[in-house]
Amino acid sequence: MNNQNEHFLGVDVGGTHLKIGKVSQQGEIVSFDKEDTSHYKEDPKGFNTCFVDVIGKYLSKYPDINKVGIGLPGLINKERTTTLEIPAIPELNGFDLKGALLEKYPEKSFFLENDASAAAMGEYKFASSRPSANFLFITMGTGIGSAAVVEGAIFKGARGNAMEMGHMLSRGNARLETIIGRKGILSIMKRMIDAYPEKAGVLLEKELGTHLLVDTAKEGNEVSLMTFEEVGDILGEAIVSTIRVLDINEVYFGGGISAGLEFMMPSLEKTVRQYLTHYYTDDLQLKKATLGNNAGTQGAAALCF
Amino acid sequence: MNNQNEHFLGVDVGGTHLKIGKVSQQGEIVSFDKEDTSHYKEDPKGFNTCFVDVIGKYLSKYPDINKVGIGLPGLINKERTTTLEIPAIPELNGFDLKGALLEKYPEKSFFLENDASAAAMGEYKFASSRPSANFLFITMGTGIGSAAVVEGAIFKGARGNAMEMGHMLSRGNARLETIIGRKGILSIMKRMIDAYPEKAGVLLEKELGTHLLVDTAKEGNEVSLMTFEEVGDILGEAIVSTIRVLDINEVYFGGGISAGLEFMMPSLEKTVRQYLTHYYTDDLQLKKATLGNNAGTQGAAALCF
Repeated sequence: MNNQNEHFLGVDVGGTHLKIGKVSQQGEIVSFDKEDTSHYKEDPKGFNTCFVDVIGKYLSKYPDINKVGIGLPGLINKERTTTLEIPAIPELNGFDLKGALLEKYPEKSFFLENDASAAAMGEYKFASSRPSANFLFITMGTGIGSAAVVEGAIFKGARGNAMEMGHMLSRGNARLETIIGRKGILSIMKRMIDAYPEKAGVLLEKELGTHLLVDTAKEGNEVSLMTFEEVGDILGEAIVSTIRVLDINEVYFGGGISAGLEFMMPSLEKTVRQYLTHYYTDDLQLKKATLGNNAGTQGAAALCF
Repeated sequence: MNNQNEHFLGVDVGGTHLKIGKVSQQGEIVSFDKEDTSHYKEDPKGFNTCFVDVIGKYLSKYPDINKVGIGLPGLINKERTTTLEIPAIPELNGFDLKGALLEKYPEKSFFLENDASAAAMGEYKFASSRPSANFLFITMGTGIGSAAVVEGAIFKGARGNAMEMGHMLSRGNARLETIIGRKGILSIMKRMIDAYPEKAGVLLEKELGTHLLVDTAKEGNEVSLMTFEEVGDILGEAIVSTIRVLDINEVYFGGGISAGLEFMMPSLEKTVRQYLTHYYTDDLQLKKATLGNNAGTQGAAALCF
């Protein structure tokens, strides 16, 4: 029975917090909570039991909810039952999370996914301008997350954990995420300020950060614009290689740094078009993701469909 | 009905020739022919009609054959009916090849595929030591061909033409194939000879070629070994990024230059292990493909299964 009023629980798992949303079939977050999980590590019950218990707290709070989607920051097995490597929460490594949840809440359904893949599904199911059934999704934040939707389903690759674009080798064999994750971008910004102090303006007096980068780029700051130009080049190079491997040429960009997408787009698009043939570029689409701050919980909820 | 004595026609399409094999269910080539296609371009019937006709010649020659596999050097549509971009034979671009064949030989079945993917299927179906159901396949010859088998099927990507690894961006944003295709390898060899003439030995007097490279590496020539070392590094870097995107860590190497695989393997394996975590390297397998010179026809025949 397809109940248009059905709601889902979307759980976005971070290193120290869970974001938990009650989400409608249309993607609307009708209720939102944040749970601090940092003390779970010291709890005598252990992190994993605490984690399973807190899900129960929300299943009790929302007895109408039968399906729970969980977005996890790391690698999980192909069957989507067991967490493999969750760098931010090593306690979760190798834990049959779905099994533990089903044992405690056998009448509910649970859907586990990598968080970038969950965000891609959120965009696919809930965005005002929906992606097609085949697209690449890149989130730029502290790190670089990525996912691909192929024929309407998350692309899992051979063993379940495809799309770790952030760990592709980029210039000088550094990982992409090292160069244009948050820290990398600030390094580029610092290097540009040192090279062109006369163009740095207000940046000379400020503590560097990505919000500052976006804000000053909007004001036309030349160093900020040059920083975005270089980031666009580097990201474009990785996208070229990924397009060659996956033959997917519709790309969405999300995450905090995508607030500056307009400033990296010229160099990004130039790079992509420079290194690809017409077969790829004729239908090429490079777009900003539309879900905002709560893409994590919305994406987790989208796993329930 | 599964007839153990059934035979298939495997057609390996090159720029100037077709290699046509009658292949058994076990992958044995029981009859082999080569057709010169270079004059088709001048034929008043046109290339495409000549191509369709010559297939008919072999269907008449082998009336017991009902299934024909065709490996094509380029991009084809996802439904595997129409050729899109065949750089070596532009006459074939945008031709409904399967439609034309079925119109003329309606009682037969035709299976079209990219030639690297066909070679991968040949390895999968016919190799003495069969790959698992998930593997990456790389052919090193004039160019760099690649394919992936995921869950026992050719990985087509979003639009049908995944796995153009040869066009990934490598060092200095050159395409991988430019750097370590045949010409690129000979450039590396030349550069090494110029840099270390005292180590070049017999290479100083010879016209450079990849057979010479393999033969002299076997004799311990230092320049040849250094050349393979650099090729292994560069190929390893591309494999790291591909593994990150596809999560596939069983890799087979074929093609003429893979005759020197043992010499590039130390640097290749070192690079791959250096940039990947245990999740990838614990089960990592890097192997030589076992099908030899006729992998093209065998692979094309393997499409009929």
